[in-house]
Amino acid sequence: MEIVEVGPRDGLQNERTLLDTATKVAYIERAVRAGIRRVEAVGFAHPARVPQLADAEAVLAALPRHPGVSYSGLVLNLRGLDRALAGAGVDEVNYVLVATDEFSGRNQGMTTAESLRQWESVAAAARAAGLRTAVTIAAAFGCPFTGEVPVSRVRDLVAAAAQAQPDEICLADTIGVGVPVQVAGLVTAAREAAPGVRLRAHFHNTRNTGYANAVAALDNGVTALDASTGGIGGCPFAPAATGNIATEDLAYLLRRSGLLDGVDERALAETGTWITGLLGVATPALLGRTDVFPPVEAG
Amino acid sequence: MEIVEVGPRDGLQNERTLLDTATKVAYIERAVRAGIRRVEAVGFAHPARVPQLADAEAVLAALPRHPGVSYSGLVLNLRGLDRALAGAGVDEVNYVLVATDEFSGRNQGMTTAESLRQWESVAAAARAAGLRTAVTIAAAFGCPFTGEVPVSRVRDLVAAAAQAQPDEICLADTIGVGVPVQVAGLVTAAREAAPGVRLRAHFHNTRNTGYANAVAALDNGVTALDASTGGIGGCPFAPAATGNIATEDLAYLLRRSGLLDGVDERALAETGTWITGLLGVATPALLGRTDVFPPVEAG
Repeated sequence: MEIVEVGPRDGLQNERTLLDTATKVAYIERAVRAGIRRVEAVGFAHPARVPQLADAEAVLAALPRHPGVSYSGLVLNLRGLDRALAGAGVDEVNYVLVATDEFSGRNQGMTTAESLRQWESVAAAARAAGLRTAVTIAAAFGCPFTGEVPVSRVRDLVAAAAQAQPDEICLADTIGVGVPVQVAGLVTAAREAAPGVRLRAHFHNTRNTGYANAVAALDNGVTALDASTGGIGGCPFAPAATGNIATEDLAYLLRRSGLLDGVDERALAETGTWITGLLGVATPALLGRTDVFPPVEAG
Repeated sequence: MEIVEVGPRDGLQNERTLLDTATKVAYIERAVRAGIRRVEAVGFAHPARVPQLADAEAVLAALPRHPGVSYSGLVLNLRGLDRALAGAGVDEVNYVLVATDEFSGRNQGMTTAESLRQWESVAAAARAAGLRTAVTIAAAFGCPFTGEVPVSRVRDLVAAAAQAQPDEICLADTIGVGVPVQVAGLVTAAREAAPGVRLRAHFHNTRNTGYANAVAALDNGVTALDASTGGIGGCPFAPAATGNIATEDLAYLLRRSGLLDGVDERALAETGTWITGLLGVATPALLGRTDVFPPVEAG
């Protein structure tokens, strides 16, 4: 299984404290040095709407490349794709398709059906440019505006999105409301709707269900999980709310479960403490407050 | 499945701020009003070693009794049992048997084998007094002093402890190092070692694995889970370390999973915010920082 580090994009996008480009590059580099091989390094949102991500091109230009390490960029529309293809570019495009019209309208200014049509164009153009493509079904586990999202709605969106032949489909619990039994149901539905397409999952730990959901996703055949070092990603309007599941805590869980090797969770925990210190926020990740187990002898 | 509220004992025992008896009673009463039916209300430790629990008899004397609600007391030795049987008493005795000699010596001043012999006396006397009996295998998932604890060690202890015919055996991850696959293995081993005895599990969320472990325990046939409202129980020497899994967050997870009914997780979340405010600590529980899902209409 793979961990996709999304701290540089999803983790940072809602933080009030704006980091400079060099700090973002350092955050990514620390994750890569700790053994992470996929990083959602940037997002191509409107700079006025998401100021934290405004320097996406500068981040990519400054980012050292390493063999076997893939950088992805979040894309919300065709304009975002143009930015992803220009300049230093990315290895992978991750398109966001929000499961409900209400949330899609607020997030991307279009209905889900309109967003699906843009996804088809984005996928074709990205593939033609030699990039890997992924589509994330956002708010798949619940919508902040309309509440419950029917499994059938997600299944139909997965089937429709799969027509564009993505390399991967991601189910995202954008607001952190999901529980493991729901994960099992949605992953099963997605696999049936898009047979043979790799599945990724994206969890927020808003209600302390994120790590249990991650385990349920793996148990049901998901092969990649999003996580942010430090567990950052809280909403600025809910100061104590946690963000993505934390890369260091997930890495601890997976290593102790025999599912992960080659990731230095202690180094990630130090990075989590470092980045939350720069942001001036509490650290939702917990490993940095304690230690790995069993204790590692000093070298 | 049942939730056992352990905040009044395990949650409070390590907190620096000493609460008065009336506040402890209010904490327990709030949990009961929210629908909790089992509460570990007190612990009978030496008052000099655990000052927070010194007023156990006064808490029990002041605690209103409710039909269908069971109060238990933690017992570490025969002297603790005498206290549990005196005065207002408890409905249930929960004896602690630590899995490693090193930790048992520091916790109870005896080896695991010596503690096992006291358990046999405690169980017989408690049963003769009409109390229900439980034994908790502490540090079953790892020891802070010796590291890994072999499954065979836990299995043998469960088998030996079962000779005293407890109503329930609990596997405790006292230091919060366990992961779900380990939970599955230990619960299976315990069931084989003590066929027919009800199993409970006790998790700390120290490394963010606690809720995933709880789900794994239920998946493997455990019928009761310990949790503390607010998620309190951190060690005073590791200020940010979280304690037990939080009752409100567990209740949210279980309700959304179709496994729990009749517990008011919003009321629990308010209690978690209240008790951590009194203790002057951050709230490890997360539900109180956000809201239930789907949103509940104002009545």
